[in-house]
Amino acid sequence: MDAIGIERGADEPRLLELPRPEPAPGEALVETLRVGVDGTDHEVIAGNHGSPPDGEDHLVLGHEAVGVVETAPGTDLEAGDVVVPTVRRPPGDDPNDYFERGEADMAPPGATLERGIDGAHGFMSEYFTSPEEYLVAVPPDLASLGFLVEPMSVSEKALELAAAARSSFEWRPETALVLGNGALGLLTVAVLVDDADEVYCLGRRDRPDPTIDVIERLGATYVDSRETPVSAVPEVHEPADLVYEATGHARHAFESIEALAPGGVAALLGVPDPWTFEVDGGRLHEELVLNNKALVGSVNSGVRHFEAAVDRLRELPRWFPESFVTEVTPHRSFGPAFRRGPTNIKSVVEFARYEER
Amino acid sequence: MDAIGIERGADEPRLLELPRPEPAPGEALVETLRVGVDGTDHEVIAGNHGSPPDGEDHLVLGHEAVGVVETAPGTDLEAGDVVVPTVRRPPGDDPNDYFERGEADMAPPGATLERGIDGAHGFMSEYFTSPEEYLVAVPPDLASLGFLVEPMSVSEKALELAAAARSSFEWRPETALVLGNGALGLLTVAVLVDDADEVYCLGRRDRPDPTIDVIERLGATYVDSRETPVSAVPEVHEPADLVYEATGHARHAFESIEALAPGGVAALLGVPDPWTFEVDGGRLHEELVLNNKALVGSVNSGVRHFEAAVDRLRELPRWFPESFVTEVTPHRSFGPAFRRGPTNIKSVVEFARYEER
Repeated sequence: MDAIGIERGADEPRLLELPRPEPAPGEALVETLRVGVDGTDHEVIAGNHGSPPDGEDHLVLGHEAVGVVETAPGTDLEAGDVVVPTVRRPPGDDPNDYFERGEADMAPPGATLERGIDGAHGFMSEYFTSPEEYLVAVPPDLASLGFLVEPMSVSEKALELAAAARSSFEWRPETALVLGNGALGLLTVAVLVDDADEVYCLGRRDRPDPTIDVIERLGATYVDSRETPVSAVPEVHEPADLVYEATGHARHAFESIEALAPGGVAALLGVPDPWTFEVDGGRLHEELVLNNKALVGSVNSGVRHFEAAVDRLRELPRWFPESFVTEVTPHRSFGPAFRRGPTNIKSVVEFARYEER
Repeated sequence: MDAIGIERGADEPRLLELPRPEPAPGEALVETLRVGVDGTDHEVIAGNHGSPPDGEDHLVLGHEAVGVVETAPGTDLEAGDVVVPTVRRPPGDDPNDYFERGEADMAPPGATLERGIDGAHGFMSEYFTSPEEYLVAVPPDLASLGFLVEPMSVSEKALELAAAARSSFEWRPETALVLGNGALGLLTVAVLVDDADEVYCLGRRDRPDPTIDVIERLGATYVDSRETPVSAVPEVHEPADLVYEATGHARHAFESIEALAPGGVAALLGVPDPWTFEVDGGRLHEELVLNNKALVGSVNSGVRHFEAAVDRLRELPRWFPESFVTEVTPHRSFGPAFRRGPTNIKSVVEFARYEER
């Protein structure tokens, strides 16, 4: 079967010919429909993050997948079920405590593999297998958008952690500030506009720009970080009860503290490289304490976040995902899906079209 | 009546002669038993923090008080009840939303006064008045230690916020690291040794030292920060599920991130001055994200935290508060209570002795 992977030492993905996988007992064989591309894929391709499975010289890419069950004997799944796979898998044969209690998303880097990213093959192949417990059912009407479940689930988890951090007192994110107008940022804006009175989304793009159009059509306000840095948002606009950082820009983790309203929380999702810079640590520390502010880091997501993401995607206006998916390329001519440019928001590699069985 | 206060511009407290206050409807008149002295009092005396009430030239000190109700007509309190007052009061006549929902501890600095600290007289006087809703009942057997309820409540709130921040997944602070071996640090060590398998308490004092003795008698491990900085604790000892910062040293807010175990949380309580320094912000940001770590700032405490603190104080071994209160001075010779030195852990000004009525 065809697969898209990156070979050790290479700097661009290529089409691989691999044997079709055989499902083990308790596993499903899944025919892949679509797989999204995100910043982590680019980090993996650039060699900055992740690695092939031990002893192998290539990594099949892809962790934002949707597919259709082909066979799944001895499981509750049936042929034709539309499913989305979670990303983390236990290293070695025995699941550790994190996996045993269904909290693989809380495992530290050494206690997990990540399919398509670190130590385990991903889903960019015509077929993949997965244990039933790592597959989440998706209604057929979401089959073509199921590749958005994984990124949306990452937001669901971060928002869950943020809300939990404020659960000992009355808190509602009336004002939210999303840092980053990439795919994750836009998905999160679409979620937050439902509940918040005011949502701001910060980026560094010039008009006309498709992401700014999406932000404004969602009813949110675009903030150009070149004119209004994060720390100036309270003065120019208003302080935020919730900051959602999806830029990976390390200064944003610290500037978020200044952007928060009293009792606010910043969810951090970016994964920056080491970078030493000056901060007024005394003032930031004082701000955190005197205004009861919080920072929560969040990575990955678990089954319940995938399930919440499915519900959330069903509620989104239909125009939104359509405006958002700017590139769908057949898997044999996947090249454009890995190009980055100002008009590209979300790229998808298509392996098959969904057909009801 | 006698009171201990600080006059605008002065740099040491003095004995004041003030009229005995008259309780308004819904208020109690309380005869003061004891009032503790803490770092905030020293900040107020030094002129770094807080101020007298508007239009007045002095501030009565004291926010860690315990007293006995003298009269409280029209309330559920009775003469002879032992009570501890909370610290925050609404600015102006109308309580704002924070006060109305019983969350004054979550109010930002502009939305609250603090008795004995900022804009409202404290409790270092022979009598004080307070609305009933800001008085918490204390069992008579805790009358002599009731001044510890306020600092303990500050810990209760911080620990509540920290646990809330980890409530969306399975979390137990098996290993805890308390930064600071002042009164607040020691009270928190005494709380944490109950549940945690291992508690470390960091300070910078040479042996022999009474706080190190207390730490070790509680079953915790003393860490000398001059030998083992916060960021080295995971390597020298072990990473901490919970860090409790009570030093006010701004670098600790950032080094805490490195001291945490995956899924850990640092509760920050110190209030440092502005101080600019370098951090590896990229690495700290990445650490927060990839290991799902959190930081929560916490200030002050509410009625439910005072109530929890009362319960907690009753459970502590009797030797602990005794080892801990190193100075009890009658109010007319209060001088020694405001001196700081290596053998002093907690000073108390005594206005009256508790006698059952």
